Amino acid sequence: MPVNYRTPAAADLWPVAGVRLGVAAAAIRKPDRHDLTVLALDPGCRVAGVFTSNRFCAAPVHVCRRHLELGSDARALLINTGVANAGTGEQGLRAAAETCAALSQLLAIDDRQVLPFSTGVILEPLPVERLIAGLPACIADLRADHWHTAAHAIMTTDTVAKAASRRFEIDGKRITITGISKGAGMIRPNMATMLGFIATDAGVAAPLLEQLLREAADESFNCISVDGDTSTNDSFILIATGQSGIEIADASTAAYAQLREALIAVAMELAQAIIRDGEGASKFITVAVEGGRDRQECKRVGYAVAHSPLVKTAFFASDPNLGRILAAIGYAEIDALDPLDVDRVRVWLASGGSEILVAEKGGRAASYREEDGARIMGEAEISVRVDLGRGSARAAVYTCDLSYEYVRINADYRS
Amino acid sequence: MPVNYRTPAAADLWPVAGVRLGVAAAAIRKPDRHDLTVLALDPGCRVAGVFTSNRFCAAPVHVCRRHLELGSDARALLINTGVANAGTGEQGLRAAAETCAALSQLLAIDDRQVLPFSTGVILEPLPVERLIAGLPACIADLRADHWHTAAHAIMTTDTVAKAASRRFEIDGKRITITGISKGAGMIRPNMATMLGFIATDAGVAAPLLEQLLREAADESFNCISVDGDTSTNDSFILIATGQSGIEIADASTAAYAQLREALIAVAMELAQAIIRDGEGASKFITVAVEGGRDRQECKRVGYAVAHSPLVKTAFFASDPNLGRILAAIGYAEIDALDPLDVDRVRVWLASGGSEILVAEKGGRAASYREEDGARIMGEAEISVRVDLGRGSARAAVYTCDLSYEYVRINADYRS
Repeated sequence: MPVNYRTPAAADLWPVAGVRLGVAAAAIRKPDRHDLTVLALDPGCRVAGVFTSNRFCAAPVHVCRRHLELGSDARALLINTGVANAGTGEQGLRAAAETCAALSQLLAIDDRQVLPFSTGVILEPLPVERLIAGLPACIADLRADHWHTAAHAIMTTDTVAKAASRRFEIDGKRITITGISKGAGMIRPNMATMLGFIATDAGVAAPLLEQLLREAADESFNCISVDGDTSTNDSFILIATGQSGIEIADASTAAYAQLREALIAVAMELAQAIIRDGEGASKFITVAVEGGRDRQECKRVGYAVAHSPLVKTAFFASDPNLGRILAAIGYAEIDALDPLDVDRVRVWLASGGSEILVAEKGGRAASYREEDGARIMGEAEISVRVDLGRGSARAAVYTCDLSYEYVRINADYRS
Repeated sequence: MPVNYRTPAAADLWPVAGVRLGVAAAAIRKPDRHDLTVLALDPGCRVAGVFTSNRFCAAPVHVCRRHLELGSDARALLINTGVANAGTGEQGLRAAAETCAALSQLLAIDDRQVLPFSTGVILEPLPVERLIAGLPACIADLRADHWHTAAHAIMTTDTVAKAASRRFEIDGKRITITGISKGAGMIRPNMATMLGFIATDAGVAAPLLEQLLREAADESFNCISVDGDTSTNDSFILIATGQSGIEIADASTAAYAQLREALIAVAMELAQAIIRDGEGASKFITVAVEGGRDRQECKRVGYAVAHSPLVKTAFFASDPNLGRILAAIGYAEIDALDPLDVDRVRVWLASGGSEILVAEKGGRAASYREEDGARIMGEAEISVRVDLGRGSARAAVYTCDLSYEYVRINADYRS
C-alpha cells in the first residue's frame, strides 16, 4: 500500500497535443499483461533526456544518448518492461537497435528518431522477436488520451501507476503538462529502473529545454532515494510539442519561470509517488537540510540521513532514536577542508503542523521531550529538518522507511 | 548466532607482560552485569590510537585524542558500556574528564594518563557517580590473565565476546599479541560503537607505533561494514609494553615486518569476528577487488557492493541476482576523470575451493550457469572477486547479509 498516494483518474490526465500513446501485451517476460508502450510524437517536437550515471548503464540508455546527440527530431519513444536489456554487452546494443529499426519502418521514420527504454531483469537477453511482433498492436492503439493506460503498461513491480497532469496559462494561452513514471531507483527485487516521461504543448528552444529538464530533475527525481542503489536504466525524458502556440526561447522571461514552476510540480509529484510506493514503505520522509555552504553539501547530508539503515529502521519502528540522525549527519563527510561545527547543527522533527527542536549544541535540546518525538515518529508523513549553521544553501531529499517488507520483497527469489 | 565464530577459551588468550585487566558491575545502564573495565599499564608502555571520523564523535574520543596528543605515557584505559557519552555536548566532556580524574587518583597517576572509552546509547548523560563508584572493584580485579573476562565486559548487544591472541618469535625472543573487540560500526540498535584494544610486549618506538597502528587498521577494522553507519565512538588502540626485551625502531627491519604481519592477523581476526556477529548476519561475505588504479578505488568499489541493500538481501536469499553486483560496481563512482570501462570488468563468485566467472565484457559470462551461482550463494562463507581491469591495486572489504533479523533488532524500541 503506497503512503498517501492514489493514481489520478484517466479523465484527470490531460492529453498533450502532439503526443499519442499506445500499449500492447507482447509477452516480453510474462504473458497477458501490457508490457510494451509506444509514444508517437508529431513532427516538430523537441525532446531532452537525462540518464543514469551508472557505468553499467543499459543498452537502450546508450542508444537513447546517441540518438539524442544526433539531434534528429525524435518521433517515437519505445518502452518495454520485463527485461532491462542491461548487462547484455554488444548483443544488447544490437537488440535495442533492431527494435528501433522495426518501429521506424512501421512509422515511416528514421530509426534514429526512435528512443528506446527498457525496464526489468538485468543480465537477461531482450526477446527482440516478441517485442517486434507486439509493435503493430501498439501502433493500432495510439491515442492522445492513453496516458492512463501507458502509466499502467510501464509498471513492473510498482503497486500503483504513477501519473500527474497540470494545466495553466501563459500569456492567455492554455499550457498542459502531463507525465508518467514507474519504479524507484533500484529498489525493485529484480526489476531495475526508474523511468519518467513528461510532455508539454509549450514550445521550448532546444538548448533551453536541456536546462529546463536538468533543473526539474535536480528538484525532483534527483532528490529521491529508497535504498541508494542507482539503477542501470534510469531515464527522465521531457517532450515539448510546441502545439500550444507558446514558444519560449529565453530563461529570463516570466513565461519560462511559469513553465519551470509547473514542470517541477509535475516532476515532484511523479518522483514522490515513486517513494510513496517504495518497497515496503510505511512512511514518507522528507529530509530538509538548510544552512549549508552550497546545495551539494545539503544534499550530501540529506542522503546520509536518508540512506542510513539505522535511521530508516527507527522510522519503521516509530522510535525517536535521534542519535542515529546525528550520527548520520556526522559521517556525511561534507567537510574535508572545512569541518562541520556540530555545536552549530540543529535538528527538528515535524509532522502536520507541529515541529519540535530535538538537537542543538552537539546534544539533545533542553526543551525536547521523548513523548513528543515518539508522537511525530508515529505519523505516516514525517519531516526531518537540519540546519547546518554554516551558510544559506538548502536542499530536500525524499525517502521511506526500511521495513521487514523491504527485505521480504528483495529476498524473494526471482520468479 | 555468529557465522563460524567462537570466542577463544580463556586459556588461549596469552597475557601480555605489562598489562592487567579488571572488570566490575557498576549498573551504568542495567544492573548485575559487567559494564566497567580498566586496563592498567606498567610505566614505559607506548600507546597509539585511531578514532572515528564522525564529526559527532563522543566526548571520550575527544578526551582520548587530547591525552594522546599530550604525549604523557598512558597508564590506564577506562571503558564503560551502556552509555556512549556521545551527543552530550559540554556536559559530556566534563563527565569524561571527571571519570579520568577519579581513576587517576585511585592509581596515583596523572589524569592525562587515563584514556576513557564509552559505548552504548547516544544522547544520554553518563552516570558519572555510579561509574566512579565501580572503579575500586575494577582495580581490585586487575590481573594479567583477565583478557577473557574483559572481552565479555565490553560487550553491549554483541552475541559473543571477541578476542584473539598470537605468539611468535623475533630474534629468538617470544612476542605475544593479544586483543579484544566489540560491536560493529553502528549496526547495534542503540549501542553505538566498535572498540578494539590490542597489546603486545614488543617495544615499538613512538612514531613507528603510529604507523604500525594505521597499517593494521587499514587492513582490518577499516575494511569491515555491516550497514555503512560510522559510529560516534569507534576507537582502536594499540599498546606496546616493551617487556619482551625486543625494541623495534626501524620499519625496514625484518622484525618490524614480522610484528606487522602478526598484528594484522590479530586485528583481522577481531575485525572479522565483528562481522561474523553482525546483526542478523547469516553469511560472511568477502568482497575482494583487484585490478584497480589504487587501493582507494578498490575499497570504494568494495564498499559499494558491500553496502548495497539489494546485494545484501540477495545474499540473504541465496539468490545469484548478479545484476545487482554489476549495478553496484557501476555506481561506485571511482571514475570522475577516468571512466571505468565496464567491458574490462570481470566478476567471480567463490566459496570453499570453487570459484566461477559470472560476468565479463559488460554482461554475463558465457560459461556461467545459474545453478552454479545458486550453489555458491547458498554457502555461509562467500567471496565476490572483482577485477576492474585498470591497474594493479587491490583491497578486500568484509560484510554480512541483510536479513529480517537485522530489521527486527534495529526496529526494536530501546528497552
